[in-house]
Amino acid sequence: MTLINENFLKLKDSYLFSEIGKRVSKYKDENPGKKIISLGIGDITKPLIPEVISAMHEAVEEMSRQETMKGYGPEQGYEFLRKVIVEKDYKSRGIKLEADEVFISDGAKSDCGNIVDVFDKDNLVAITDPVYPVYLDSNVMSGRKIIYISLKEENNFIPDLPKEKADIIYLCFPNNPTGTVLGKKELKRWIDYALENKSIILYDSAYEAFIKDKEIPHSIYEIKDAKKCAIEFKSFSKTAGFTGVRCAYCIIPKELKGYTKAKKEISLNLLWKRRQSTKFNGVSYITQMGAQAIYSIKGRKQVQEIIDYYLENAQIIKNTLKDYGYTVYGGENSPYIWMKIPGKMKSWEFFDELLREKQIIGTPGVGFGKNGEGYFRLSAFGDRIDIIEAMKRF
Amino acid sequence: MTLINENFLKLKDSYLFSEIGKRVSKYKDENPGKKIISLGIGDITKPLIPEVISAMHEAVEEMSRQETMKGYGPEQGYEFLRKVIVEKDYKSRGIKLEADEVFISDGAKSDCGNIVDVFDKDNLVAITDPVYPVYLDSNVMSGRKIIYISLKEENNFIPDLPKEKADIIYLCFPNNPTGTVLGKKELKRWIDYALENKSIILYDSAYEAFIKDKEIPHSIYEIKDAKKCAIEFKSFSKTAGFTGVRCAYCIIPKELKGYTKAKKEISLNLLWKRRQSTKFNGVSYITQMGAQAIYSIKGRKQVQEIIDYYLENAQIIKNTLKDYGYTVYGGENSPYIWMKIPGKMKSWEFFDELLREKQIIGTPGVGFGKNGEGYFRLSAFGDRIDIIEAMKRF
Repeated sequence: MTLINENFLKLKDSYLFSEIGKRVSKYKDENPGKKIISLGIGDITKPLIPEVISAMHEAVEEMSRQETMKGYGPEQGYEFLRKVIVEKDYKSRGIKLEADEVFISDGAKSDCGNIVDVFDKDNLVAITDPVYPVYLDSNVMSGRKIIYISLKEENNFIPDLPKEKADIIYLCFPNNPTGTVLGKKELKRWIDYALENKSIILYDSAYEAFIKDKEIPHSIYEIKDAKKCAIEFKSFSKTAGFTGVRCAYCIIPKELKGYTKAKKEISLNLLWKRRQSTKFNGVSYITQMGAQAIYSIKGRKQVQEIIDYYLENAQIIKNTLKDYGYTVYGGENSPYIWMKIPGKMKSWEFFDELLREKQIIGTPGVGFGKNGEGYFRLSAFGDRIDIIEAMKRF
Repeated sequence: MTLINENFLKLKDSYLFSEIGKRVSKYKDENPGKKIISLGIGDITKPLIPEVISAMHEAVEEMSRQETMKGYGPEQGYEFLRKVIVEKDYKSRGIKLEADEVFISDGAKSDCGNIVDVFDKDNLVAITDPVYPVYLDSNVMSGRKIIYISLKEENNFIPDLPKEKADIIYLCFPNNPTGTVLGKKELKRWIDYALENKSIILYDSAYEAFIKDKEIPHSIYEIKDAKKCAIEFKSFSKTAGFTGVRCAYCIIPKELKGYTKAKKEISLNLLWKRRQSTKFNGVSYITQMGAQAIYSIKGRKQVQEIIDYYLENAQIIKNTLKDYGYTVYGGENSPYIWMKIPGKMKSWEFFDELLREKQIIGTPGVGFGKNGEGYFRLSAFGDRIDIIEAMKRF
C-alpha cells in the first residue's frame, strides 16, 4: 500500500497566490468588463531588456545548427554565467567567491524549496512572521519543527534573535512582504548568533537589485564570516524581469559546513551539488545566455532603468497612501509597500472590498502569517499608468 | 547546530555520468588531439527542428513587448501545452485524460527525483537492477528501503514480479539502459500486481518516441485500470532534442490514490499540484512554446525524421556488433544498445580500455547496478559519421 507523506495534510488548504487567483477569477466572471489593476502577486510587467532579447535570439539560432547546438549542460550551470556572477555581483563588492560556489537554477522558489533536502528532519527551523510562504510550506512538507520570529511594527519589522537555538534560519531582505531592509549592524547580530550556535542562515536576497541606500549590504557576505554560516539565494526574476523565463542562483560557500549527529563536519556545497546532479539537469542554455546578457555594460544600464522605474512606482504608491493618511512601510530599497489596514478590518475582508469597490488587487497580509493580519502588501511592479489610476481609485 | 541529511552519506561517491566525465577529461588532458567519439551519456547531437526554432524566436519576440510579454506562468504549465499533449499523445491512442492531469516540468530527471516528496518515508521501493541511477539515488537520499528486481539475460531483461509487496515500483520502458521493451501482456502483469497490492508504478517513458513495433504500448494507460495505479513520466529531451532546453511532463491521473497510515485515500494529483506550486514556478514560456511546436503537422514530421535517424544509428551499431560476434540487446524501439562484454572483463575496465585503445566512450553497465557488471551501454544519439567511424574502430 503506497503511503503518502502525511505532512502535506498539515499544510493550509491553498497556496496564497492560488487563492488570490481564484477570487479574482470569480470576480472577473461575475463582473465582465471591469478593469482590474493588480498590485498583487508581485509579478513584473516590463518586457525583457533588448540585450537579453538579442542574446536569447542568438542562443536559439545556435540551437538550430549542429555545430553550435547544446545538449545537456552542467547541472550547476554554465561556467560563463557562474563566472560573470562571481565577477559582477561579488568581486565588485569585495567578496571573493569561486565559480563552483555558484549554482544556477530555474528559480529562487525551487532553490528555497529544494534546499531542505540536504538537511536533517530534526533541525529546528526559524522563520519570520510574516514570511514568504515557501519557507514555511517546504518545511511543513518535510515535517520539521518551526519557530517564528515576529516582525512587528514597534520594531520597524526588524527581526529579533530567537531565544531558542534555531538550527536553520530563513531571512529575506529587502523583505518580502514588509519591504523593509537590514543594515550591516543588524545583519551582523544574526551572523554572530549563527556562528555561536553553529546554525545556518538561508538568506533570500531576491530583491537585492532594489537597494539604493549605500549603507545597506547587497550580499550577506559583505559581513565578516558570513561564508561560514550562510547560503544566499538570488534571482533574475525581479532584477531583470525573468519571472516567465526562470533563472536564479544560490551561493553555497565551500567553507560552509553542516554536521552529522556524530558532529562530523560536512561540506554543504558538496551535498547540494550532489542533490542537484541527482534531481536536476540544469537550466536551458537559451535562458542562461539571456541571464549572461544582463551583466554586459548595455545590459546593466537597461536593467537599471527598469529597476528605477519600479522604484519610482513604489515612491508614488508610498507617498500617495501617506498623503491619504495611511500608515505605510517599505517602498524604499524595495518594490513592496506594506500598508496598515485602517480600522479593524481583516486582511481578506480588505482584499475583497478593494477588489469589489475599487477593482484593485493586493495581497492580504495574513497570507504571509498571523502577524500579517491587518496589513496589506502592494507591489510596485505595475505599469505607471495603472499605478497612478490605482492611486486615484484608493 | 545544523544537522545534515545523513542519507546523503550512503550514496555512492559520484554520480555515474560525472565519473565518466572526469575520466574522459583526464584522458583528453593527457592525449590532446585524439578524436574521441562518445556513445556514452545518451545526449542527443541533432539540433532543434526548424518548427521549434521558429516558435522559440517568436516567443522571444513576445517577451520583448509589453503587450505580449509573459510573467509568472502557471506552475503546472500553460494550458495550450497541456491540452495539445492530452490530444496528441493520449486521445489519439484512445486514452482519455484531462489537462489538469498533466504537469509540465523542466525535465523528467526533476520529476523522477522530486516525486519522492509526496510519499511517506516508510514505503518499500522496488527498482530494477540495472537501473537509471536517479530512482535509486533519490530514494537513498530520502532514506527509503529499496528492493531490487533483477533484469537478467535469461529473462531477456524483462522484470519479474517481486516476492515482497513493494509499495512504489519504478519501471522504465523502452528501458534505459538495456534498450528492451515491455509488451502489453507483461505490462498488464505489473498493473495487476499494483492493483492487488495498492502499490503505485512510476512509469518512466522517456524513450517512448522510439517505439516502432505496433504491439508495444506507447503509454502505460493503454492497459486497463493503469490510471488507478500509475504515474507516467515523459520527456521532450530525446523525443525532440530538448536535453539543453529542459522540458518534460508527467501524468498523474485524478483517480490515482495514495493512503494515509489510517488508510484514508488521498489524491496524488492534488498532492503533486501542491508540491509543484510550493517548490516550483513553471517552465520558461519560450521553452513551452517550443514544446508546443513539436505537435504541429510540420513539427511531428521533422521530429519523426530525427527519431528515424537515431533508430538507423541503433541498427548500424547493433548489426555491426553482431557481425563482429558480440552479443547485443536493445536497439529496436530504443536508442540504446546493451552489449555483453566479451571475456571476463569488468565494465569499468572495458570503459577504460575502449577509451584508451579506440577513443570510444560508452557507459559501463555496472554504473546502472551490480547486474550491469559485464555489460556496456552504447547510445545511438551520435552523428552518423561518428557512429560509422566508431564501428570501424571496434
